[in-house]
Amino acid sequence: MYDRIKGFRDFYPAEMQSRRQVMDTVEGAAKNYGFREIGTPALEAVEMYADKSGDEIVEELYAFEDQGGREVALTPELTPTVARMFVAKQQELSKPVKWVSTRPFWRYEEPQQGRFREFYQTNVDIFGSSDPTADAEVLAVAADALTDLGLTAEDFDFRVSHRDILGGLLESFDADVDTRAAIRAVDKRAKVEDDEYARLLEEAGLTHAQAMEFDGLLDTPEDSLDELVAFAGTDRVEAAVENLQNVLAAANDFGVREYCTLSLTTARGLDYYTGVVFECFDSTGEVSRSVFGGGRYDDLIEGFGGQPTPAVGFAPGYATLSLLCQRAGVWPAEELSTDYYVLQVGDTRDVAARVARDLRARGHVVESDVSGRSFGAQLDYADSINAETVVIVGEQDLANGEVTVKDMDSGDQTTAPVDAFPGDHDRPTFEDFAE
Amino acid sequence: MYDRIKGFRDFYPAEMQSRRQVMDTVEGAAKNYGFREIGTPALEAVEMYADKSGDEIVEELYAFEDQGGREVALTPELTPTVARMFVAKQQELSKPVKWVSTRPFWRYEEPQQGRFREFYQTNVDIFGSSDPTADAEVLAVAADALTDLGLTAEDFDFRVSHRDILGGLLESFDADVDTRAAIRAVDKRAKVEDDEYARLLEEAGLTHAQAMEFDGLLDTPEDSLDELVAFAGTDRVEAAVENLQNVLAAANDFGVREYCTLSLTTARGLDYYTGVVFECFDSTGEVSRSVFGGGRYDDLIEGFGGQPTPAVGFAPGYATLSLLCQRAGVWPAEELSTDYYVLQVGDTRDVAARVARDLRARGHVVESDVSGRSFGAQLDYADSINAETVVIVGEQDLANGEVTVKDMDSGDQTTAPVDAFPGDHDRPTFEDFAE
Repeated sequence: MYDRIKGFRDFYPAEMQSRRQVMDTVEGAAKNYGFREIGTPALEAVEMYADKSGDEIVEELYAFEDQGGREVALTPELTPTVARMFVAKQQELSKPVKWVSTRPFWRYEEPQQGRFREFYQTNVDIFGSSDPTADAEVLAVAADALTDLGLTAEDFDFRVSHRDILGGLLESFDADVDTRAAIRAVDKRAKVEDDEYARLLEEAGLTHAQAMEFDGLLDTPEDSLDELVAFAGTDRVEAAVENLQNVLAAANDFGVREYCTLSLTTARGLDYYTGVVFECFDSTGEVSRSVFGGGRYDDLIEGFGGQPTPAVGFAPGYATLSLLCQRAGVWPAEELSTDYYVLQVGDTRDVAARVARDLRARGHVVESDVSGRSFGAQLDYADSINAETVVIVGEQDLANGEVTVKDMDSGDQTTAPVDAFPGDHDRPTFEDFAE
Repeated sequence: MYDRIKGFRDFYPAEMQSRRQVMDTVEGAAKNYGFREIGTPALEAVEMYADKSGDEIVEELYAFEDQGGREVALTPELTPTVARMFVAKQQELSKPVKWVSTRPFWRYEEPQQGRFREFYQTNVDIFGSSDPTADAEVLAVAADALTDLGLTAEDFDFRVSHRDILGGLLESFDADVDTRAAIRAVDKRAKVEDDEYARLLEEAGLTHAQAMEFDGLLDTPEDSLDELVAFAGTDRVEAAVENLQNVLAAANDFGVREYCTLSLTTARGLDYYTGVVFECFDSTGEVSRSVFGGGRYDDLIEGFGGQPTPAVGFAPGYATLSLLCQRAGVWPAEELSTDYYVLQVGDTRDVAARVARDLRARGHVVESDVSGRSFGAQLDYADSINAETVVIVGEQDLANGEVTVKDMDSGDQTTAPVDAFPGDHDRPTFEDFAE
């Protein structure tokens, strides 16, 4: 007996069917906006993450030396990979490039509710547009994905922020601030004690008083953003505020403004973000952590050796998304569905196989006996897989040129001519043959 | 600039769209027979492969010690994982268990045509039936998958063999034979020189004369299998021949007998196979290696600590399958498809966004400008993504309450009332509005 590795999961059919439905819905929302599926490798060079993702991710890498002596890592996130792929074909790709993919990632973290060492994400990215419309399209895909799952504005909230407002405010203080460290402190604000948060800001270079003032600025409401421009007095903050307002206006055109709330205390943990960033939260607070997030990363492509290229994206993870869907009561029922079970009684395999084949040719899920089991055992099995209709192919019925069609919901059954089954019927049921 | 790791691949959208279509077709064939999707981890304990898969696979493992000191490996194949999963829930699972999944696997092999270090397979397995019907259902799913891809009996051939016939013949010789080693030699028969093949059989315990005699028996034609029974004179060979004949009879009922040829020189490389095994080959021989294979592995579940449970399955890999499809001219065209491009002229984003949203709500793939580009640049982009219809939302047209609908194939265009677009139309085209 072997054990599954800690933090890794096996998905059995009923749960997998629900997950697949949710993943297809999210991916489908992106595909309807013209995002195209890509396929990406599970291993990348370790140095890519060491250079670009920040220390936190590198500490959690599943990294090792392969048989050829390369330092490789199981991909902990997709953004560096898509940046690498974009740079490799930058000249020939028609811009904007809009990519989507769903796959597992791996981080050596302590497993807890909604967090696993192997976790699945759908990544959605646009390369080649700095226009606020691109940021808004990302918000729109995210909102469509959630509403397509059955969630409503009562259920979730996109907390929208802007890295350049945070950075611009920080540089307006009379201090030598490590902006990345300060922004990481903001990202930790809700997760650590107040003292610890203040200490992190001070470590980043602010005095205690400056840290308190900076933190106070983060509570500025949306209709007072001009106060931030006035406080900083820099073009950088002015441009960032205007950009944020333009993104929200575009989100309004896209019909998703209602899901967005200004939240400057939202910072995102990864170093490479530049402009608008956002995180999705459960409106009820019952799912206490961020469900997923995204944002703009305009410098990463150049950092990967490409021509400067703006980029924006987001990546819902299914561990937290399933918590939100379950809280809201919209997680799909975890039960199998089956269109037909073709039941064999006696030596009728040839006819049963023909009936099953004809039903499959019409696009249905059709099971039949592969174990030589009794009538009762087959009927129990058909019930266990939630077969809607059972077609009984018995020796006696066949002698009369008939099969029996049984509706599993009502238990009603009737006979049908075997030569006309399924015949002209696309999806033959009990009703089609009952008198 | 970072490089992709050798033997790993990036799939860009056009190629990925074709791959996805092929993978969905293969998975769809299995799902129509009631195989249910499962999700499986990328890492497993190394010992699982060391115990069960044979030395060849263990030498090629991407194995390492994780941060918690576990010896783990990137999964090189799925069978041990599904065996582990089956054993973990053996009591509660309704039998037969029929599972399918599509995902990457990893082996440190030398990359060549049709072989990569990261490769994708669809695994299809039945647990809990020893009936020949189960073997035949696996052959039927494999055949349906290939014919659904557009392949015909002219294109491929399932070479069907039986491990127990091979093993039974070997044990009937007056020699101390290492059956596994001898069967591995048979598996290598077509890949090594005759001398080397003879040497491998001798190493397994046969004399040179016995090795030659054994090899001659492998050419026995289907209508003379009784001669093998007579040669061996054992119940084991008699039962194995009868089982093979029953599987082929069941394949006939399933309508897939025409794809199957007896081929006792087919052995399969993995140690855990027990009964019927098969390999799919390109009938033209242009793809010179086995496209994929499968077979029965009745002892594995017990070897994993479960109750004795028969099992049978197969696993098409997409690297070799794509070679076969390309050779046969049925690999899907590698080009993007897009239903609509909504083109903005002037400040019309709000209306364009509403039109795009309504088209998406009807299930279509709809792109729109996210870069503030010119009319010409947008039209070029719409062409590059093969948009079927372009809806032009211009300030002047809007002043008249109209949008322009352009068929990209013919270049024809006409106007449509903006309030009735898409209106009652599920998939509005130029023809719907042309006078």
